[in-house]
Amino acid sequence: MQLPVAEIEARVAGFQSDMQSEGWAGALIAQRLDLYYFSGTTFIQYLIIPAQGSPLALTRQQVPVPPPWQVETTTKSFGLAQVLPELVPPGERLGLELDVLPANQYLRLIETLPSYRLEDISTSIRRRRAVKTDWEMSVFRDTARRDLAVWEAVPELVATAATDLELSARMEALARSQGHQGLLKFRSFNEEIWMNTVLAGTAGACSGPWDTPLSGPGISPAFPQGASGRPIVPGQPILIDYGGTYHGYILDQSRTFARTHLDTELLKIYDKAREIQDAVIKATRPGAVCGDLYKIAAEIAEQTGLAEYFMGPKRVPFIGHGVGLELDEWPVLARGSKATLQAGMVFALEPKFALPEIGAIGLENCWCVTETGTEKLSFASDELIIA
Amino acid sequence: MQLPVAEIEARVAGFQSDMQSEGWAGALIAQRLDLYYFSGTTFIQYLIIPAQGSPLALTRQQVPVPPPWQVETTTKSFGLAQVLPELVPPGERLGLELDVLPANQYLRLIETLPSYRLEDISTSIRRRRAVKTDWEMSVFRDTARRDLAVWEAVPELVATAATDLELSARMEALARSQGHQGLLKFRSFNEEIWMNTVLAGTAGACSGPWDTPLSGPGISPAFPQGASGRPIVPGQPILIDYGGTYHGYILDQSRTFARTHLDTELLKIYDKAREIQDAVIKATRPGAVCGDLYKIAAEIAEQTGLAEYFMGPKRVPFIGHGVGLELDEWPVLARGSKATLQAGMVFALEPKFALPEIGAIGLENCWCVTETGTEKLSFASDELIIA
Repeated sequence: MQLPVAEIEARVAGFQSDMQSEGWAGALIAQRLDLYYFSGTTFIQYLIIPAQGSPLALTRQQVPVPPPWQVETTTKSFGLAQVLPELVPPGERLGLELDVLPANQYLRLIETLPSYRLEDISTSIRRRRAVKTDWEMSVFRDTARRDLAVWEAVPELVATAATDLELSARMEALARSQGHQGLLKFRSFNEEIWMNTVLAGTAGACSGPWDTPLSGPGISPAFPQGASGRPIVPGQPILIDYGGTYHGYILDQSRTFARTHLDTELLKIYDKAREIQDAVIKATRPGAVCGDLYKIAAEIAEQTGLAEYFMGPKRVPFIGHGVGLELDEWPVLARGSKATLQAGMVFALEPKFALPEIGAIGLENCWCVTETGTEKLSFASDELIIA
Repeated sequence: MQLPVAEIEARVAGFQSDMQSEGWAGALIAQRLDLYYFSGTTFIQYLIIPAQGSPLALTRQQVPVPPPWQVETTTKSFGLAQVLPELVPPGERLGLELDVLPANQYLRLIETLPSYRLEDISTSIRRRRAVKTDWEMSVFRDTARRDLAVWEAVPELVATAATDLELSARMEALARSQGHQGLLKFRSFNEEIWMNTVLAGTAGACSGPWDTPLSGPGISPAFPQGASGRPIVPGQPILIDYGGTYHGYILDQSRTFARTHLDTELLKIYDKAREIQDAVIKATRPGAVCGDLYKIAAEIAEQTGLAEYFMGPKRVPFIGHGVGLELDEWPVLARGSKATLQAGMVFALEPKFALPEIGAIGLENCWCVTETGTEKLSFASDELIIA
């Protein structure tokens, strides 16, 4: 599905308006998904977005579906340094994605563009990307519809798979067969994720090296995440965290399952996770403060004596995160965050408990902030399923 | 499979020897896979390797399998700035991975460590990682053994799958079920890859935004790579590029298939790809110059009138690349490269042709440079298979 031209133009116009009010003369976009977001293609090397006027794309190759403005092919002697002054006046502030641009590339740009003040514009980009457009909302809804088929197949997999790995593989094959792109992306350095994390029994209580609540042991210490080949045993909680991604945009969802039965105490903990979800969503609206939403969740976990298990073995200090083309978009519903929600923001809310020697219990849904509250983007049932 | 302690110690000792001869006082390692390479764990935040003496790992969390030296937990008031001077004398050259470290993190380190000369040590790291140890070779051999089962299942998938996507999904599920970690990593900024690229018919002639010879249309313009849901048609070439990864290390392989039949002309092109492989491998030995190996390949493509189709629609200027924990390791068998091969280097050699309106034809195997020539690391048959 190509980005509509009107969508591309509206995104750029919005970003230009941000740049004008923040005093930027322009931005030089280089990261693959920022390029896609602002141009509809990843086949370009640099996208120059001046604070005013038409953008220019620089490429070293043919662009199958070019953006709706000029595209120039660069050579060894013709490139950024030659074209930039025509769009962005020298001496001014030029924004770079310093949160993701490798230091060497940044140092080379300082040499190539000595007459510009090169500063970090990533905060403006992330703020703009956090508020989803109507087109993006329609993509999320289509993703949710496709994902329903994946989630509805899971109980049978829980009932029949020999190992967590077989369960994971069969679920992934189903998603891929109907058009899942496979790859899921983080923006942050060193963060990485596989499309599907199946945590059976005590695997759910394994800490991981990433900034995520749950991780699992994985197959190799080079990538300690997800299933590891353990047998699926009746009576253990099985938490599945899966990112449906059919058009670039990630719908992040988690559910808890068990084969044949699950202890009443564990079912009660799942009810607590749902209670937290409901309480946070009830308070979610434009203007709500992210840290306040975190507090609502943490207090319920505290009151019920489950605080030490809340948000995984590391007790990560957040209960939700923005989703979009990347899994670590804004907003972050983090402890102490003063950021406020806006209509159009989409976030995953994931109240989860990790019980040592037992496993992980919880759920995760994606929500869009609307003018009056929220729209739930996941269609799969919130019930814990005994298969 | 944990990294043996002796392996970790030998890697660090080798790197320290490099640093001493290159005039470094130490290195500060932050990238996830460099951390794993030098310590056996990814659960640490920074690894300080002084040019002499014992390394120190800094972490913010529990480390399940700590490296064989001291591990310190950092807090808001205790961290890098406090411990570094005990290991690396201030005023000296401290190496950072400036090829991958985000600019913002680099700028923060300049503020945190004002008394050091922070310079790029990534070349030394990549040179060290390029030469594989006996332990790494045993991992590659085990990976090749496991991958054989995946490749042997492919003909049946080629014969029966309705679409390229179904073929891809079923192959991935088989690999995952037997312990494939899923995620494959590039080191370079903006490079990304899915574990399996199935290119049926004209999809093999699609250009992609990455520095790879073939890409395919993919499912979404946000990630234009691999299968796209096209039907598998008898008589079309189907090139499958798959990275087997069971212990962190990637065994990169490609093979060509067809359902029911393939034109004699296309079979001859496949023979050319094999001829290129054989000629390059015949010339491969310690001391061989990478650019000379590229030239051998390019000349055969030229002589047979296939130069314009060689190495994909973009005609990428290389025929092979190092593999290891990442897919873009060194050496690179690139046009004009003066780099020489050493015993222990492992590379993927991938002579491939992309024919417009037809598709991709070629193969790829991994090879280890030995004292006397090469060891082939892939066990799957080199034959083009008509299923």
